[in-house]
Amino acid sequence: MVIVVLAGGVGAARFLEGLVHVIPQEQITIIGNVGDDADIHGLHVSPDLDIVTYTISGLVDPVKGWGLRGDTFECQNGLRKYGYRTWFNLGDRDLATHIYRTQELRNGRKLSEITEDVVRRLGIRTRIIPATDDHFQTHVLTKKGWMHFQEYMVKLKTRPRVYRVSFRGARTARPAKQVIESIMKASGIIVAPSNPVVSIGAILSVPGIRSALRRTKRTVVGISPIIGGKTVKGPADKLMKACGIRPSAVGVANSYRDFLDALILDRVDQKLTTDIEQLGVRPVVTNTLMKTLNDKIRLARVALGELEQ
Amino acid sequence: MVIVVLAGGVGAARFLEGLVHVIPQEQITIIGNVGDDADIHGLHVSPDLDIVTYTISGLVDPVKGWGLRGDTFECQNGLRKYGYRTWFNLGDRDLATHIYRTQELRNGRKLSEITEDVVRRLGIRTRIIPATDDHFQTHVLTKKGWMHFQEYMVKLKTRPRVYRVSFRGARTARPAKQVIESIMKASGIIVAPSNPVVSIGAILSVPGIRSALRRTKRTVVGISPIIGGKTVKGPADKLMKACGIRPSAVGVANSYRDFLDALILDRVDQKLTTDIEQLGVRPVVTNTLMKTLNDKIRLARVALGELEQ
Repeated sequence: MVIVVLAGGVGAARFLEGLVHVIPQEQITIIGNVGDDADIHGLHVSPDLDIVTYTISGLVDPVKGWGLRGDTFECQNGLRKYGYRTWFNLGDRDLATHIYRTQELRNGRKLSEITEDVVRRLGIRTRIIPATDDHFQTHVLTKKGWMHFQEYMVKLKTRPRVYRVSFRGARTARPAKQVIESIMKASGIIVAPSNPVVSIGAILSVPGIRSALRRTKRTVVGISPIIGGKTVKGPADKLMKACGIRPSAVGVANSYRDFLDALILDRVDQKLTTDIEQLGVRPVVTNTLMKTLNDKIRLARVALGELEQ
Repeated sequence: MVIVVLAGGVGAARFLEGLVHVIPQEQITIIGNVGDDADIHGLHVSPDLDIVTYTISGLVDPVKGWGLRGDTFECQNGLRKYGYRTWFNLGDRDLATHIYRTQELRNGRKLSEITEDVVRRLGIRTRIIPATDDHFQTHVLTKKGWMHFQEYMVKLKTRPRVYRVSFRGARTARPAKQVIESIMKASGIIVAPSNPVVSIGAILSVPGIRSALRRTKRTVVGISPIIGGKTVKGPADKLMKACGIRPSAVGVANSYRDFLDALILDRVDQKLTTDIEQLGVRPVVTNTLMKTLNDKIRLARVALGELEQ
């Protein structure tokens, strides 16, 4: 029995932290977003893959939700001395991951193979597969023109209004090895409470993944990252609006309606259940805000419970 | 008035530390060795340029003679976790220099331009020019076959016997901009107490540099890195033997005899003066061992004194 989880960054990582307390790590395969991947000072950074990996390994900085706990920033301070604008934070120990990934990519290895190494070296038994090994980057159109999603997200702190989202490379990208197979063989699929546009949407834009989710006979359950019309963290609500999606659990259900069996939404959104039912998606109301480890474990149990239905 | 110094790594840096206490930094132009440059985990490392830069800026680790004082090694520890053999030590703050250099090279800038930036950003007013901007690497032939000089020097700690030394890229390398001009305009030239084979020899192997040293009318004074038949630091003696050069001040004088006016040698080698004179080089006997800052300053004064003759 293996559960497949489609995952973005911090929201997904929180949920996964609960999940690994409920079922063995070996029984989880994560399909991760690579649209956030960026070249930072010549290094290939994979923010979402790292957030998930660092969180499951217990190494993540628990306050920030990304990076490594207790990491130092000596190299970054040095780069600033050389005039580099270091808006993307790179800790010294975190840098090892980026240097390793960059060097192995240059050696001709695939991102999925390298991710497998990182996961293994950090002592995790969960499988983490990037959605694609091909060049794939999420860009957003703002008043200042097109920019890499990380520039909008980290450098400009999601301040500019977004008009459009583009997944560069999506048309020709192929799912990484084992992505489709994992989905088809999974005993159930969970769509983590991640950004439906730039995290899950990016994964779904890789040709073949969405249709595999439609084809599978197993249950696909999602968790709404939107609570009471607002995102818990990150710019999901803004980006949903930019893409003409209602920033609510209904909008989330609608985005996934072609493959989603059930959507877990928060009690504050109780009133939305009828709208969600009308989309052909079964609404599951519970507390979805994950503050404590217990919240995460409880939410994981609810999601797993839906898969068994 | 500008003095040009041909410089390798630690020995040259010690000497230069004294020199900057005697004449203003602006009056010194250093031509640095790049034969030691290596690709470490995908980063372009220039050990000799960095040793000299860090030493003059006062940032160098005074015990090791390379790297930055008080630097941490978090990234390196992380790389070890990923299975990398980290025989070449890269401190976290030091890494900033390598990441900056690598990224700027990838952006199409020249090593000499980048070195100028680094020097300026670290607050040095001395000019440091790499001997060449072209691809240039020193390799040595040992029982284990050909290997990069850094592998022999750092990884194998100069243990294997060296049979041959090869400067890869030397034939087609061009001196970096300002190298020849600096030599021809200098009011005097000092050959630092560096390895005559892999440091100074590497610089001299770049076509045009040796002939400029022969052409200049100004005095060229060298300092023997060999004291009593032994090197103070590094494998100079072993490598001189490998190249059929007598590991003594006489061997040093002989290596440079076509352009050298005077050679400063240690008192313990007093007996070698006649042999050196016979090579057409004026021997200058003094204490050459640099332990304290005063030793360094005194040696710099002796060298400058010879230039004024």
